[in-house]
Amino acid sequence: MATSEFELIGRYFTHRTRHAVLGVGDDAALVRVKRGHDLVVSADMLVAGRHFFRDADPRLLGHKALAVNLSDMAAMGATPRWATLALALPAADARWVRAFSRGFMALARRFDVDLIGGDTTRGPLNICVQIMGETPHGKALRRDGARRGDDIWVSGTLGDAALALAALKRRIKLKPAELASCAARLHSPQPRVVLGRALRGVAHSAIDVSDGLLADLGHILESSDVAAEIELAALPASAILRRYLDRVVACSALLAGGDDYELCFTAPRSARERIARLGREVRVKVTRIGSVGAYRKALPRLIVRAPDGAALRVVRGGYDHFA
Amino acid sequence: MATSEFELIGRYFTHRTRHAVLGVGDDAALVRVKRGHDLVVSADMLVAGRHFFRDADPRLLGHKALAVNLSDMAAMGATPRWATLALALPAADARWVRAFSRGFMALARRFDVDLIGGDTTRGPLNICVQIMGETPHGKALRRDGARRGDDIWVSGTLGDAALALAALKRRIKLKPAELASCAARLHSPQPRVVLGRALRGVAHSAIDVSDGLLADLGHILESSDVAAEIELAALPASAILRRYLDRVVACSALLAGGDDYELCFTAPRSARERIARLGREVRVKVTRIGSVGAYRKALPRLIVRAPDGAALRVVRGGYDHFA
Repeated sequence: MATSEFELIGRYFTHRTRHAVLGVGDDAALVRVKRGHDLVVSADMLVAGRHFFRDADPRLLGHKALAVNLSDMAAMGATPRWATLALALPAADARWVRAFSRGFMALARRFDVDLIGGDTTRGPLNICVQIMGETPHGKALRRDGARRGDDIWVSGTLGDAALALAALKRRIKLKPAELASCAARLHSPQPRVVLGRALRGVAHSAIDVSDGLLADLGHILESSDVAAEIELAALPASAILRRYLDRVVACSALLAGGDDYELCFTAPRSARERIARLGREVRVKVTRIGSVGAYRKALPRLIVRAPDGAALRVVRGGYDHFA
Repeated sequence: MATSEFELIGRYFTHRTRHAVLGVGDDAALVRVKRGHDLVVSADMLVAGRHFFRDADPRLLGHKALAVNLSDMAAMGATPRWATLALALPAADARWVRAFSRGFMALARRFDVDLIGGDTTRGPLNICVQIMGETPHGKALRRDGARRGDDIWVSGTLGDAALALAALKRRIKLKPAELASCAARLHSPQPRVVLGRALRGVAHSAIDVSDGLLADLGHILESSDVAAEIELAALPASAILRRYLDRVVACSALLAGGDDYELCFTAPRSARERIARLGREVRVKVTRIGSVGAYRKALPRLIVRAPDGAALRVVRGGYDHFA
C-alpha cells in the first residue's frame, strides 16, 4: 500500500525544531530573526541525471543537498538557521526517503539548522532546498567588494570532486584508494560555514567554489569590476590530484571542475597574518593564490600564470546547463 | 543557439527589488525583517503533469505558482514580502520563460513581493516557489486555535476550479461561457492576502482551501482537537456550480475539489458583525458555514448536514499524491 504524502512528511521530516516558533506541519513556519541581523536567503534545485546520478546513494544525496546550500551561506559569512525542503519523488519509497532524511538531518543537526517546512510530491526526482541564515546588519560577505591590491585566497583543496567524476565517467583511471578519497569530496562536501563567519569584517569579498574556480572567481571579478592574476603552481591540490596534473583532465578539474565547495575570497594584504591565524583556529587550510588589480578593457579579467610565467589560455570554465 | 542559464536568470528575473538589500545575483539575498515581526516561511513544488497540464499557458502558470504560495501567507495572516523561484526546464525556451516571468512578476508587483533569489536548471518541468512574509510577533493565524463554539467561515465561493478541471477531463459538460468562468478560477486563483491580514486578532484559526474544504477544514479540526458540523446548503457556490449540484461531480467539487484558494477560518460568535464588516471593507464575500464543537472519540470529526438534516457520509476528501 502506497504511503500517503502526509505520512511521508510526518514520519521523516518533522523533528523538534529549536529555532522555530512553528515547525513543519502548518501552512507556514514562523521564525524569529535576531535583532540587528539581516536574513540571508538562498535556494538550490538539484535534478536527477544532471546534478547527481539517478542511483545516487540517498543518504549521501541528503547530505549534499543541504551541504551545497550551507556553502552559499558560508560564502556570505552567514550563520545558517533554517531550511525548507521540497522533494519530487517518482514513488513513495519509504526506504529511500528515510535514508535521504538521515543524511540531510545529520548535517542539519551538525550546523544547528532547523528544517521548518517544505513539500513532498510525486514526480521526476527533484530536490529543492532553501536555506535561511543570519548575519549582523551590513556584515555579510559579498561578491562585489574585491579591491585592487587584494590578495586572493582559497580554502582547502580544489579538483578532487571533479577528478572523481571524471574517473566515474571513465575519462581517467584512478587507483581504488585514490577514487575513494576523491569520491568522498564529490559525494560529501563539507561546507565552510565556520570559516565564512570568521571572515566577516576581514575579507572584502567571497564566493563558494561550486562551478569551478575560474567561473566563480570570475563572478567576483565581474561584480567588483576588477581583474586578477593567479598562479597555477599556488593552487591548493591534494597529493592525489598532483600525481595527475600532467593530464589535461586533472588540470581542468583543478581550475574548472566544480563541486569543490571551498571558499574563494579576497582580502587586503594587511590581513595576511590574521587570515593565516583564523585558518589555524577553524582548522581549515587557506592558501594565497594570486592578487587583484585594475580591470583594463582590452585584457582578460582573469589571467592564470603557469610556473614559467606564461599566461595560460583560459577557456570558458563555468558549467552551464544550457550552453 | 541555446541561451545560457545565467542569461535566462538575468533577463527575466532580475528586477529592481524594493524590499531587499541584495537581490537576485549574489550567492544569497539579504533582507531585513521588520522589528517586532516574525518571519513566515512557506514552500511549494509544482510538477508538470501532476499540478498542472504540461501544455499549460506559461503566463497563467507563472501567476498560479506564486498565487498558491501567497495563499499560504494569507492563511497565516502574514504580509508577503519576498519570494525565491527555482525552475527546472526541459529546454532553454526563452519565450516560455518570458511568459512565465510575466505572470509571476505581475502578481508579485500587485502584492509588493520581491523576487530575491532562486535557481534555473535543466530537467523535467518543475516549479518550486518559496515565499517569505512578516507578521507581528504572536499575531499569526494558525491551524490549532479553533475553539468549541466558534463559527466556521469560508471566503468567496468553492468548487468552480474543480468543476473546470472535471470539464477539461470530460467528466461533465459545461457551456462555453460557464467553462470560461470556472477555468479562470482554476488557472488564475486570487490569494486572499488582504482578508487574511484583516483577520489577525479576530479569527482563532485559519487555513487556505487548496486540497478541498473537507480536507483543509479537517486539518484545522485535527490540529485544534475539536469537531465541527457544517451545512451543505450554507456552502458558498457560484451560480454556475449551483446549476449542477444534483450531479455528484459538482457536489464533490464543492466539498472536496480543491484549488479554491479561499480562506476557511473559525472565529467566536461575538465576532460575527466584525467579520461581516471587514468582508465588506476588503470586498471579499465571507459566509458562515457551520460551527465548532467538542470532539467525541466515537464520532466523526466533521459532519456535513444535508438540507433535510441527515448527516452525509464523508469519504476521504483530500487529494493525496501517493494514495
